[in-house]
Amino acid sequence: MSTVKGNALVAQSGGPTAVINASVCGVVQEAAKHQEITGMFAAHNGILGVLQEKLFDLGAEDPKAVEMLKTTPSAALGSCRHKLKSLEQSRADYERVLEVFRAHNIRYFFYAGGNDSMDTAAKIKDLSASLGYEMLVMGVPKTIDNDLAFTDHCPGYGSVAKFIATSVMEAGRDTESLYTFDTCAVLETMGRNAGWIAASAALARRSEEDAPHLVYVPEVSFSREKFVEDVRRVHARFGRCFIAASEGMRWDDGRYVSEDSSSLAKDSFGHSQLGGVSQALKAIIEHELGLKTRWMMQGLTQRNAMHFASRTDRDEAVLCGAEAVRQAVSGVSGFMVTLERTSNDPYRVDTGLAKLEDVANGEKKLPVDWMNEEGNFPTLEFIDYARPLVEGEVRVPVEGGVPLFMRFKKKWLPARCADYQVK
Amino acid sequence: MSTVKGNALVAQSGGPTAVINASVCGVVQEAAKHQEITGMFAAHNGILGVLQEKLFDLGAEDPKAVEMLKTTPSAALGSCRHKLKSLEQSRADYERVLEVFRAHNIRYFFYAGGNDSMDTAAKIKDLSASLGYEMLVMGVPKTIDNDLAFTDHCPGYGSVAKFIATSVMEAGRDTESLYTFDTCAVLETMGRNAGWIAASAALARRSEEDAPHLVYVPEVSFSREKFVEDVRRVHARFGRCFIAASEGMRWDDGRYVSEDSSSLAKDSFGHSQLGGVSQALKAIIEHELGLKTRWMMQGLTQRNAMHFASRTDRDEAVLCGAEAVRQAVSGVSGFMVTLERTSNDPYRVDTGLAKLEDVANGEKKLPVDWMNEEGNFPTLEFIDYARPLVEGEVRVPVEGGVPLFMRFKKKWLPARCADYQVK
Repeated sequence: MSTVKGNALVAQSGGPTAVINASVCGVVQEAAKHQEITGMFAAHNGILGVLQEKLFDLGAEDPKAVEMLKTTPSAALGSCRHKLKSLEQSRADYERVLEVFRAHNIRYFFYAGGNDSMDTAAKIKDLSASLGYEMLVMGVPKTIDNDLAFTDHCPGYGSVAKFIATSVMEAGRDTESLYTFDTCAVLETMGRNAGWIAASAALARRSEEDAPHLVYVPEVSFSREKFVEDVRRVHARFGRCFIAASEGMRWDDGRYVSEDSSSLAKDSFGHSQLGGVSQALKAIIEHELGLKTRWMMQGLTQRNAMHFASRTDRDEAVLCGAEAVRQAVSGVSGFMVTLERTSNDPYRVDTGLAKLEDVANGEKKLPVDWMNEEGNFPTLEFIDYARPLVEGEVRVPVEGGVPLFMRFKKKWLPARCADYQVK
Repeated sequence: MSTVKGNALVAQSGGPTAVINASVCGVVQEAAKHQEITGMFAAHNGILGVLQEKLFDLGAEDPKAVEMLKTTPSAALGSCRHKLKSLEQSRADYERVLEVFRAHNIRYFFYAGGNDSMDTAAKIKDLSASLGYEMLVMGVPKTIDNDLAFTDHCPGYGSVAKFIATSVMEAGRDTESLYTFDTCAVLETMGRNAGWIAASAALARRSEEDAPHLVYVPEVSFSREKFVEDVRRVHARFGRCFIAASEGMRWDDGRYVSEDSSSLAKDSFGHSQLGGVSQALKAIIEHELGLKTRWMMQGLTQRNAMHFASRTDRDEAVLCGAEAVRQAVSGVSGFMVTLERTSNDPYRVDTGLAKLEDVANGEKKLPVDWMNEEGNFPTLEFIDYARPLVEGEVRVPVEGGVPLFMRFKKKWLPARCADYQVK
């Protein structure tokens, strides 16, 4: 066991997910069981809140609000995309972090986020060690993109996958009903660098006629000619074509397909406007094949779709938060909790650990051999991998026909440090 | 009671909804209780299927598939946007319809759709009467747009309203979490002529800080200057701004805001590309206020979101279908079933009847006085009207983590008429 006793701080970073609050719930509820952790604080807006000494006391919150983190999407503590650079370049920032930690006797730091957050956490750990400030730092994995290395998958992914697959099923039935008018449809998913989210659309397809018929990911370079042939073939067979496409799709030369679309698109101010992959594909289909095409871009709704989130994903998010606390109080520091799949059928996971620096520098793309030879649909290996992650439904509390989400009352800790200018 | 005995035909028309299949379920299950109706057939793709004599036997379908219509979105019979013109202009088409009806002894016709479908149904009724072919024609209301006259509201609207409000809540929490990076967001809804769907976003807001902060509808003409001031004021107060906007928003001079956006936007083939209202508003905010803005356009997913459909809406859709059958077998013809709100708290509805011609020629916009004086948010009157329509959740059957929808096996009726060329 760790002999370190003091306050704990939890923070959230990067793009929100449906279940990153569930991880915070795991941290807070587990911390309450350990007497090493005397106070449980939150940083408002991730590392920004530490730099600005905007901390609030989670111990002052209603335990019901903490429990409702499990059914509230997005980052209830606030998030940020503020990235600290190397220790050399951003030394003042890291020292400020330690100053705030010392001032509030923060001895445990739990950071839920992706690569960049793990990088920040690793550097905080290094600096605290070199300054002789005893503390334990643990990372909690979070990203809808599912691109963290050293973990089988990431909390957040299962829920976005379930929502995308469900949306494709539903919109796919629309195209099936109205193919005489709206013949093709493109649903654009998030995933700037990795195709995990777009690939999850394939979970919608139980038979050949089901949407999606074609799935495009960034890992396979995109060919206009081949795309036109793909759509022509599907349309000839089914009289319609439903396509799921990642926003991160690229041409052979590495340029984003969405950039190409926007290269000529100007808004009414003459600014070039990022048109999106879905609009680019619509333009190609209508121009080359003359088939009327609908497009959709669900944007922020996809990563926050708590109303139909994956129960498996949510429960694993809680688990990762709780496990980070258990590890820290047992003296482990400098690691991110990982998920290890010990069995696929029945599906079982165990937690593991990966060094923060390793996670920070890794990136896990969709394996290219999990796409078919034509590069236009995920293989059965992918389906077998992803299916268990979307199983089960979270039932959100509902009032007046819409979900009931929590919000913290945020009892701010009095400032103990001087003001600090965040650059 | 009607003395007319024979087969019944049911068809779906126009844009699909989450619950138009539930109406068909109501028709089919109610028809089975009446011996006046000897066979229950479906037209594939609405009136197109009648013209092409593409009919299938619903009596040959598994009763479980019929029951699953209640949890399957979009049009299981197929839909169309084929519009018949006046009796004078399209006389051959109408005569063809009667020819097919005669050939299959169809004496009951149930058409689920919006204004245009009611117009078609009315003309079929007129022609059958003038030709001395005894039959009963009933309309079943359907439209997410909620713009049919003579009915308190339309089946399909409650479910899209629930999904839009839920999406705004969820995406709104994202902007609240990450306002230091993504400060504003625009969610674009369907509703080309009426603001009912955009207004439903207001159901998401329980407190002032909740999304949406601003709601724009086609019924209030849009001013760029006023919009910029609206966003500036909300941003000054909350540090962020979430906007729900209808695709049908118009400038003072009647032009669509989306057209303005596209007037300068060209795709990579040089075609003008309908950019959408959300992208137009994003461009205005970023240009005038320099605030980073996300946008989303859920497209077809919003009108098919069965996975979180309104139970009230779904049950009323079944009711309208069943009532159409009850009325027809009692000898009523030439009417659409309507919903009449007899009490708002507790919410109660009764069915009524409106003449098909009247519905065909009517259109019900959002009352302008259900928007506030600034024209940027619905009033409490609207909320009181819309709230009961989104109450209750449909629980879809789920398999492998995604919904399980039905599909008919479609046992086609042998053709009895000559081929017919649909223009």
